[in-house]
Amino acid sequence: MNLLLLSNSTNPGEEYLSWPREYLNSFLEGIDDDILFIPYAGVTISWDDYFEAVEAAFEPLNKEVTSIHHTLNPEKAVMKARAILVGGGNTFQLFNEIQENGLLLPIRKRVEEGMPYVGWSAGSNVACPGLHTSNDMPIVEPVSFDGLHLVNYQINPHYTSKTIEGHGGESRDQRLAEFLAANPDKKVVGLRESSLIEVQGDVHTIRGNNPARLFSIEGTTEIEIGGQIQV
Amino acid sequence: MNLLLLSNSTNPGEEYLSWPREYLNSFLEGIDDDILFIPYAGVTISWDDYFEAVEAAFEPLNKEVTSIHHTLNPEKAVMKARAILVGGGNTFQLFNEIQENGLLLPIRKRVEEGMPYVGWSAGSNVACPGLHTSNDMPIVEPVSFDGLHLVNYQINPHYTSKTIEGHGGESRDQRLAEFLAANPDKKVVGLRESSLIEVQGDVHTIRGNNPARLFSIEGTTEIEIGGQIQV
Repeated sequence: MNLLLLSNSTNPGEEYLSWPREYLNSFLEGIDDDILFIPYAGVTISWDDYFEAVEAAFEPLNKEVTSIHHTLNPEKAVMKARAILVGGGNTFQLFNEIQENGLLLPIRKRVEEGMPYVGWSAGSNVACPGLHTSNDMPIVEPVSFDGLHLVNYQINPHYTSKTIEGHGGESRDQRLAEFLAANPDKKVVGLRESSLIEVQGDVHTIRGNNPARLFSIEGTTEIEIGGQIQV
Repeated sequence: MNLLLLSNSTNPGEEYLSWPREYLNSFLEGIDDDILFIPYAGVTISWDDYFEAVEAAFEPLNKEVTSIHHTLNPEKAVMKARAILVGGGNTFQLFNEIQENGLLLPIRKRVEEGMPYVGWSAGSNVACPGLHTSNDMPIVEPVSFDGLHLVNYQINPHYTSKTIEGHGGESRDQRLAEFLAANPDKKVVGLRESSLIEVQGDVHTIRGNNPARLFSIEGTTEIEIGGQIQV
């Protein structure tokens, strides 16, 4: 499979989708049109506005993007796309829309056949077996927590071990420890902002500007930039 | 109804359940036994250990607490309890256990009949119409997002407008704006740490050490300590 799974679209203060631009460009080399964007995770932004922002970000790369919400038949759009981009926002809404539009199996089928898949934030969550390691608020109840299962581990995007000082709510590390206590056979890649997982065939490599952190019930280990995820 | 809905059990650095002690004592006045604790939200703590911590916190108040996980018939335990305490932890697991044990309707019935209900953190979330304004990680898929509906608004416990500096993940305010965009007819009480909602009959009052923040699609307003929630 060919996957580019980003922690986040944009670093604070930077232009939209600018930090991953070089990775997007080389990952999508030779594919200049029929790139299908899925804006379903957008909640406080209209899907039209979301699409325009993504379209503008890909224009300097000479890549033509279309949005699934402008097509009459979402499944057909997936079947004829040459690459797919799944944007961030709210993971619960993203899962719900993908499931309600009957797209879980079509997207999975196409990606298994080799179609390149790019996800950022919620778009990386939905590439996982399940919704379980999202940071988002459960604003809508999805049909189920089932994801695309393009990778066999969970991803925690925007991973940070930092906390808000003087605040008693759980830290991210405590939340991930809860996930592993409830799901001791699972593994989670904590993907820090400004980093990504590049999957080519069976090789899963950490790229970008920060190492990742692998969580399992046995403990946690760092995966350096350029290092591979072994699960 | 008689409800005491706490944002959090404990402030950083303080003893377990110490800040709300005076409120718990006067709310449960005259009820010294058959107080039923529900530890289902506990994930990284065993339910035995969780119960012991709660039992120890209520001992100075001369209140005898039992735990629902030590009873053979959870529903019967709810029916004979004189008061109920629902502890914090992971909201998704709490909803799932309450639903799988068939306790949504029995608890609701008893509380509607006047049985005092105390919840903190996840225990306040489950008093709401739905799970939708939890801060927790969706570590397990609950049967549904349906809550006890003891109040007709949502609560966001541990509410804070602070963010982690240099981190691009959504702020709490952004997450609540997403909830309202997806559910424009709903209202949310952002309950800061070290504060609670006291419900007596139809009067819902903010108590403790911090004002609350009421979120609706029209905008947000502060509710001072001693002020009432009007929704």
